[in-house]
Amino acid sequence: MRILGIDPGLATMGWGVIESNGYKEKLIQYGALLTYPRDSFPTRLQSLMFGVRSLIKTFQPEEIAFEELFFSKNVTTGIQVGGARGVALAVCREYTDRLFEYTPMQIKQAVVGYGGADKHQVQMMVKMLLNIPEIPRPDDAADGVACAICHAHSGAGREQFLIK
Amino acid sequence: MRILGIDPGLATMGWGVIESNGYKEKLIQYGALLTYPRDSFPTRLQSLMFGVRSLIKTFQPEEIAFEELFFSKNVTTGIQVGGARGVALAVCREYTDRLFEYTPMQIKQAVVGYGGADKHQVQMMVKMLLNIPEIPRPDDAADGVACAICHAHSGAGREQFLIK
Repeated sequence: MRILGIDPGLATMGWGVIESNGYKEKLIQYGALLTYPRDSFPTRLQSLMFGVRSLIKTFQPEEIAFEELFFSKNVTTGIQVGGARGVALAVCREYTDRLFEYTPMQIKQAVVGYGGADKHQVQMMVKMLLNIPEIPRPDDAADGVACAICHAHSGAGREQFLIK
Repeated sequence: MRILGIDPGLATMGWGVIESNGYKEKLIQYGALLTYPRDSFPTRLQSLMFGVRSLIKTFQPEEIAFEELFFSKNVTTGIQVGGARGVALAVCREYTDRLFEYTPMQIKQAVVGYGGADKHQVQMMVKMLLNIPEIPRPDDAADGVACAICHAHSGAGREQFLIK
Protein backbone atom coordinates (compact mmCIF):
# COMPACT_ATOMS: atom_id res chain seq x y z
CA MET A 1 0.00 0.00 0.00
CA ARG A 2 1.20 3.47 -0.86
CA ILE A 3 0.98 5.97 2.02
CA LEU A 4 1.47 9.73 1.98
CA GLY A 5 2.42 11.23 5.34
CA ILE A 6 1.94 14.97 5.89
CA ASP A 7 3.21 17.22 8.67
CA PRO A 8 1.00 20.27 8.10
CA GLY A 9 2.32 23.79 8.51
CA LEU A 10 2.02 27.18 6.84
CA ALA A 11 5.70 27.98 6.16
CA THR A 12 6.76 24.34 5.73
CA MET A 13 4.54 21.38 4.98
CA GLY A 14 6.64 18.24 5.22
CA TRP A 15 5.69 15.10 3.34
CA GLY A 16 6.89 11.58 2.71
CA VAL A 17 5.65 8.76 0.50
CA ILE A 18 6.29 5.15 1.42
CA GLU A 19 5.26 1.77 0.10
CA SER A 20 4.35 -0.77 2.78
CA ASN A 21 3.53 -4.46 2.55
CA GLY A 22 2.41 -4.51 6.20
CA TYR A 23 5.79 -5.79 7.39
CA LYS A 24 8.35 -3.60 5.71
CA GLU A 25 8.39 -0.07 4.34
CA LYS A 26 10.17 1.32 1.30
CA LEU A 27 10.77 5.04 0.86
CA ILE A 28 9.48 6.42 -2.43
CA GLN A 29 10.19 10.13 -1.96
CA TYR A 30 10.05 12.94 0.56
CA GLY A 31 10.16 16.73 0.59
CA ALA A 32 8.59 19.91 1.90
CA LEU A 33 6.21 22.45 0.42
CA LEU A 34 7.53 25.89 1.34
CA THR A 35 5.71 29.22 1.46
CA TYR A 36 7.16 32.63 2.17
CA PRO A 37 6.22 35.36 4.67
CA ARG A 38 6.68 38.00 1.96
CA ASP A 39 3.59 36.54 0.26
CA SER A 40 0.07 37.19 1.54
CA PHE A 41 -1.66 34.53 3.62
CA PRO A 42 -4.15 33.70 0.81
CA THR A 43 -1.27 33.37 -1.66
CA ARG A 44 0.54 30.99 0.68
CA LEU A 45 -2.61 28.90 1.10
CA GLN A 46 -3.15 28.79 -2.63
CA SER A 47 0.43 27.65 -3.12
CA LEU A 48 -0.12 24.82 -0.59
CA MET A 49 -3.34 23.87 -2.37
CA PHE A 50 -1.47 23.49 -5.67
CA GLY A 51 1.41 21.72 -3.95
CA VAL A 52 -0.70 19.10 -2.20
CA ARG A 53 -2.77 18.52 -5.34
CA SER A 54 0.39 17.93 -7.32
CA LEU A 55 1.74 15.48 -4.69
CA ILE A 56 -1.45 13.46 -4.89
CA LYS A 57 -1.48 13.41 -8.67
CA THR A 58 2.17 12.37 -8.77
CA PHE A 59 2.17 9.65 -6.11
CA GLN A 60 -1.49 8.56 -6.04
CA PRO A 61 -1.39 7.40 -2.41
CA GLU A 62 -4.04 4.94 -1.24
CA GLU A 63 -4.13 6.37 2.26
CA ILE A 64 -2.97 9.68 3.72
CA ALA A 65 -1.79 10.22 7.30
CA PHE A 66 -1.57 13.65 8.97
CA GLU A 67 0.34 14.65 12.05
CA GLU A 68 -2.06 16.33 14.45
CA LEU A 69 -1.57 20.03 15.15
CA PHE A 70 -0.82 20.92 18.70
CA PHE A 71 -1.14 24.40 20.17
CA SER A 72 -1.23 25.17 23.82
CA LYS A 73 -2.13 28.84 23.75
CA ASN A 74 -1.89 31.01 20.66
CA VAL A 75 -5.30 31.17 18.93
CA THR A 76 -4.06 33.41 16.09
CA THR A 77 -1.36 30.90 15.17
CA GLY A 78 -3.97 28.14 15.49
CA ILE A 79 -6.24 29.88 12.97
CA GLN A 80 -3.35 30.34 10.52
CA VAL A 81 -1.89 26.85 10.73
CA GLY A 82 -5.45 25.50 10.91
CA GLY A 83 -5.97 27.20 7.53
CA ALA A 84 -2.96 25.42 6.04
CA ARG A 85 -4.13 22.07 7.43
CA GLY A 86 -7.69 22.75 6.21
CA VAL A 87 -6.53 23.40 2.67
CA ALA A 88 -4.49 20.17 2.68
CA LEU A 89 -7.43 18.15 4.05
CA ALA A 90 -9.89 19.58 1.51
CA VAL A 91 -7.60 18.80 -1.42
CA CYS A 92 -6.83 15.29 -0.13
CA ARG A 93 -10.55 14.65 0.41
CA GLU A 94 -11.19 15.38 -3.27
CA TYR A 95 -9.08 12.35 -3.97
CA THR A 96 -9.83 9.88 -1.15
CA ASP A 97 -11.75 9.52 2.11
CA ARG A 98 -8.91 7.43 3.60
CA LEU A 99 -7.52 10.30 5.71
CA PHE A 100 -5.99 9.56 9.10
CA GLU A 101 -4.46 11.58 11.89
CA TYR A 102 -1.93 10.77 14.61
CA THR A 103 -0.61 12.78 17.54
CA PRO A 104 3.15 13.40 17.78
CA MET A 105 3.22 10.99 20.72
CA GLN A 106 1.49 8.23 18.74
CA ILE A 107 4.02 8.71 15.95
CA LYS A 108 6.98 8.47 18.33
CA GLN A 109 5.45 5.40 19.94
CA ALA A 110 4.95 3.71 16.56
CA VAL A 111 8.36 4.59 15.12
CA VAL A 112 10.67 4.39 18.16
CA GLY A 113 8.51 2.33 20.52
CA TYR A 114 8.53 5.12 23.10
CA GLY A 115 6.11 8.11 23.10
CA GLY A 116 8.63 10.36 24.81
CA ALA A 117 11.36 9.88 22.19
CA ASP A 118 13.16 13.00 20.97
CA LYS A 119 13.34 14.29 17.41
CA HIS A 120 16.78 12.78 16.79
CA GLN A 121 15.73 9.30 17.93
CA VAL A 122 12.73 9.44 15.59
CA GLN A 123 14.91 10.51 12.68
CA MET A 124 17.48 7.76 13.32
CA MET A 125 14.72 5.13 13.40
CA VAL A 126 13.24 6.50 10.16
CA LYS A 127 16.65 6.15 8.53
CA MET A 128 17.09 2.61 9.88
CA LEU A 129 13.59 1.32 9.12
CA LEU A 130 13.75 2.59 5.55
CA ASN A 131 17.38 1.59 5.09
CA ILE A 132 18.34 4.93 3.59
CA PRO A 133 21.80 6.57 3.71
CA GLU A 134 20.70 9.95 5.14
CA ILE A 135 18.11 11.35 7.52
CA PRO A 136 15.43 13.11 5.41
CA ARG A 137 15.82 16.92 5.45
CA PRO A 138 14.32 19.30 6.38
CA ASP A 139 12.99 18.09 9.77
CA ASP A 140 9.40 18.54 8.60
CA ALA A 141 10.00 16.12 5.74
CA ALA A 142 11.34 13.56 8.25
CA ASP A 143 8.19 14.16 10.32
CA GLY A 144 6.03 13.51 7.25
CA VAL A 145 7.89 10.25 6.60
CA ALA A 146 7.60 9.23 10.28
CA CYS A 147 3.86 9.88 10.12
CA ALA A 148 3.55 7.60 7.07
CA ILE A 149 5.52 4.87 8.88
CA CYS A 150 3.29 5.26 11.95
CA HIS A 151 0.27 4.71 9.74
CA ALA A 152 1.84 1.66 8.12
CA HIS A 153 2.44 0.20 11.59
CA SER A 154 -1.06 0.93 12.87
CA GLY A 155 -2.34 -2.20 11.12
CA ALA A 156 -5.88 -3.39 11.66
CA GLY A 157 -6.47 -0.77 14.37
CA ARG A 158 -6.06 2.09 11.96
CA GLU A 159 -9.77 2.77 11.42
CA GLN A 160 -9.90 4.46 14.83
CA PHE A 161 -7.51 7.11 13.48
CA LEU A 162 -9.76 8.11 10.57
CA ILE A 163 -10.35 11.87 10.70
CA LYS A 164 -13.92 12.43 11.85
CA MET B 1 -18.16 47.06 -8.82
CA ARG B 2 -19.33 43.63 -7.83
CA ILE B 3 -18.43 42.59 -4.29
CA LEU B 4 -18.76 39.19 -2.62
CA GLY B 5 -18.95 39.33 1.18
CA ILE B 6 -18.20 36.17 3.17
CA ASP B 7 -18.80 35.38 6.83
CA PRO B 8 -16.59 32.29 7.20
CA GLY B 9 -17.66 29.34 9.33
CA LEU B 10 -17.55 25.55 9.27
CA ALA B 11 -21.24 24.72 9.74
CA THR B 12 -22.54 27.86 8.01
CA MET B 13 -20.64 30.12 5.63
CA GLY B 14 -22.79 33.14 4.93
CA TRP B 15 -22.37 35.12 1.72
CA GLY B 16 -23.83 38.08 -0.11
CA VAL B 17 -23.18 39.63 -3.51
CA ILE B 18 -23.80 43.32 -4.12
CA GLU B 19 -23.18 45.75 -6.95
CA SER B 20 -21.90 49.15 -5.84
CA ASN B 21 -21.31 52.36 -7.77
CA GLY B 22 -19.48 53.88 -4.78
CA TYR B 23 -22.61 55.69 -3.59
CA LYS B 24 -25.36 53.16 -3.64
CA GLU B 25 -25.51 49.37 -3.35
CA LYS B 26 -27.79 46.92 -5.07
CA LEU B 27 -28.29 43.38 -3.76
CA ILE B 28 -27.62 40.67 -6.33
CA GLN B 29 -28.06 37.55 -4.20
CA TYR B 30 -27.29 36.07 -0.79
CA GLY B 31 -27.22 32.68 0.87
CA ALA B 32 -25.29 30.31 3.08
CA LEU B 33 -23.14 27.27 2.40
CA LEU B 34 -24.09 24.61 4.95
CA THR B 35 -22.13 21.58 6.12
CA TYR B 36 -23.24 18.87 8.48
CA PRO B 37 -21.71 17.44 11.66
CA ARG B 38 -22.59 13.91 10.49
CA ASP B 39 -19.95 14.36 7.77
CA SER B 40 -16.23 14.17 8.49
CA PHE B 41 -14.24 17.38 8.86
CA PRO B 42 -12.39 16.82 5.54
CA THR B 43 -15.71 16.18 3.76
CA ARG B 44 -17.14 19.42 5.17
CA LEU B 45 -14.07 21.35 4.02
CA GLN B 46 -14.27 19.83 0.58
CA SER B 47 -17.92 20.80 0.35
CA LEU B 48 -17.02 24.40 1.28
CA MET B 49 -14.26 24.36 -1.34
CA PHE B 50 -16.76 23.37 -4.04
CA GLY B 51 -19.33 25.84 -2.72
CA VAL B 52 -17.03 28.86 -2.71
CA ARG B 53 -15.66 27.93 -6.12
CA SER B 54 -19.16 27.77 -7.52
CA LEU B 55 -20.07 31.17 -5.99
CA ILE B 56 -17.07 32.77 -7.65
CA LYS B 57 -17.79 31.19 -11.02
CA THR B 58 -21.43 32.25 -10.83
CA PHE B 59 -21.03 35.84 -9.66
CA GLN B 60 -17.49 36.71 -10.78
CA PRO B 61 -16.91 39.31 -8.05
CA GLU B 62 -14.20 41.92 -8.61
CA GLU B 63 -13.36 42.10 -4.91
CA ILE B 64 -14.07 39.78 -1.98
CA ALA B 65 -14.49 40.88 1.64
CA PHE B 66 -14.22 38.50 4.62
CA GLU B 67 -15.44 39.01 8.15
CA GLU B 68 -12.53 38.44 10.51
CA LEU B 69 -12.69 35.42 12.82
CA PHE B 70 -12.66 36.17 16.46
CA PHE B 71 -11.89 33.64 19.19
CA SER B 72 -11.03 34.47 22.72
CA LYS B 73 -10.00 31.11 24.05
CA ASN B 74 -10.77 27.86 22.30
CA VAL B 75 -7.78 26.83 20.17
CA THR B 76 -9.45 23.64 18.89
CA THR B 77 -12.39 25.63 17.54
CA GLY B 78 -9.90 28.14 16.11
CA ILE B 79 -8.10 25.38 14.19
CA GLN B 80 -11.41 24.04 12.81
CA VAL B 81 -12.95 27.35 11.77
CA GLY B 82 -9.49 28.49 10.65
CA GLY B 83 -9.58 25.48 8.31
CA ALA B 84 -12.89 26.58 6.81
CA ARG B 85 -11.63 30.15 6.36
CA GLY B 86 -8.35 28.85 4.89
CA VAL B 87 -10.16 26.80 2.27
CA ALA B 88 -12.29 29.81 1.29
CA LEU B 89 -9.23 32.08 1.06
CA ALA B 90 -7.27 29.61 -1.06
CA VAL B 91 -10.12 29.15 -3.53
CA CYS B 92 -10.77 32.91 -3.74
CA ARG B 93 -7.06 33.55 -4.26
CA GLU B 94 -7.12 31.28 -7.33
CA TYR B 95 -9.47 33.83 -8.83
CA THR B 96 -8.30 37.22 -7.55
CA ASP B 97 -5.78 38.86 -5.20
CA ARG B 98 -8.36 41.50 -4.21
CA LEU B 99 -9.18 39.88 -0.86
CA PHE B 100 -10.05 42.07 2.12
CA GLU B 101 -10.90 41.50 5.76
CA TYR B 102 -12.87 43.52 8.31
CA THR B 103 -13.50 43.02 12.01
CA PRO B 104 -17.11 42.71 13.23
CA MET B 105 -16.70 46.16 14.81
CA GLN B 106 -15.54 47.73 11.54
CA ILE B 107 -18.54 46.20 9.77
CA LYS B 108 -20.97 47.57 12.36
CA GLN B 109 -19.30 50.98 12.18
CA ALA B 110 -19.55 51.04 8.38
CA VAL B 111 -23.13 49.77 8.14
CA VAL B 112 -24.79 51.35 11.19
CA GLY B 113 -22.32 54.14 11.98
CA TYR B 114 -21.67 52.71 15.43
CA GLY B 115 -19.19 49.91 16.24
CA GLY B 116 -21.23 48.73 19.21
CA ALA B 117 -24.43 48.17 17.25
CA ASP B 118 -26.30 44.92 17.86
CA LYS B 119 -27.12 42.23 15.30
CA HIS B 120 -30.68 43.47 14.79
CA GLN B 121 -29.59 47.06 14.09
CA VAL B 122 -27.10 45.81 11.50
CA GLN B 123 -29.76 43.68 9.84
CA MET B 124 -32.27 46.56 9.73
CA MET B 125 -29.68 48.84 8.11
CA VAL B 126 -28.79 46.14 5.56
CA LYS B 127 -32.48 45.91 4.65
CA MET B 128 -32.81 49.70 4.40
CA LEU B 129 -29.59 50.39 2.49
CA LEU B 130 -30.38 47.73 -0.09
CA ASN B 131 -34.08 48.60 -0.20
CA ILE B 132 -35.17 44.97 0.10
CA PRO B 133 -38.45 43.72 1.60
CA GLU B 134 -36.94 41.24 4.09
CA ILE B 135 -33.86 40.85 6.26
CA PRO B 136 -31.58 38.24 4.63
CA ARG B 137 -31.80 34.84 6.34
CA PRO B 138 -30.02 33.03 7.91
CA ASP B 139 -28.10 35.51 10.11
CA ASP B 140 -24.80 34.44 8.57
CA ALA B 141 -26.07 35.44 5.12
CA ALA B 142 -27.00 38.87 6.51
CA ASP B 143 -23.47 39.08 7.96
CA GLY B 144 -22.00 38.26 4.56
CA VAL B 145 -24.10 41.00 2.95
CA ALA B 146 -23.13 43.48 5.71
CA CYS B 147 -19.47 42.65 5.10
CA ALA B 148 -19.87 43.39 1.38
CA ILE B 149 -21.57 46.73 2.20
CA CYS B 150 -18.77 47.58 4.63
CA HIS B 151 -16.25 47.00 1.86
CA ALA B 152 -18.25 49.14 -0.59
CA HIS B 153 -18.22 51.97 1.98
CA SER B 154 -14.51 51.69 2.73
CA GLY B 155 -13.74 53.74 -0.41
CA ALA B 156 -10.20 54.86 -1.14
CA GLY B 157 -8.98 53.64 2.25
CA ARG B 158 -9.75 50.04 1.44
CA GLU B 159 -6.19 49.02 0.52
CA GLN B 160 -5.32 48.94 4.22
CA PHE B 161 -7.80 46.08 4.62
CA LEU B 162 -6.14 43.83 2.04
CA ILE B 163 -5.36 40.47 3.65
CA LYS B 164 -1.61 40.30 4.18
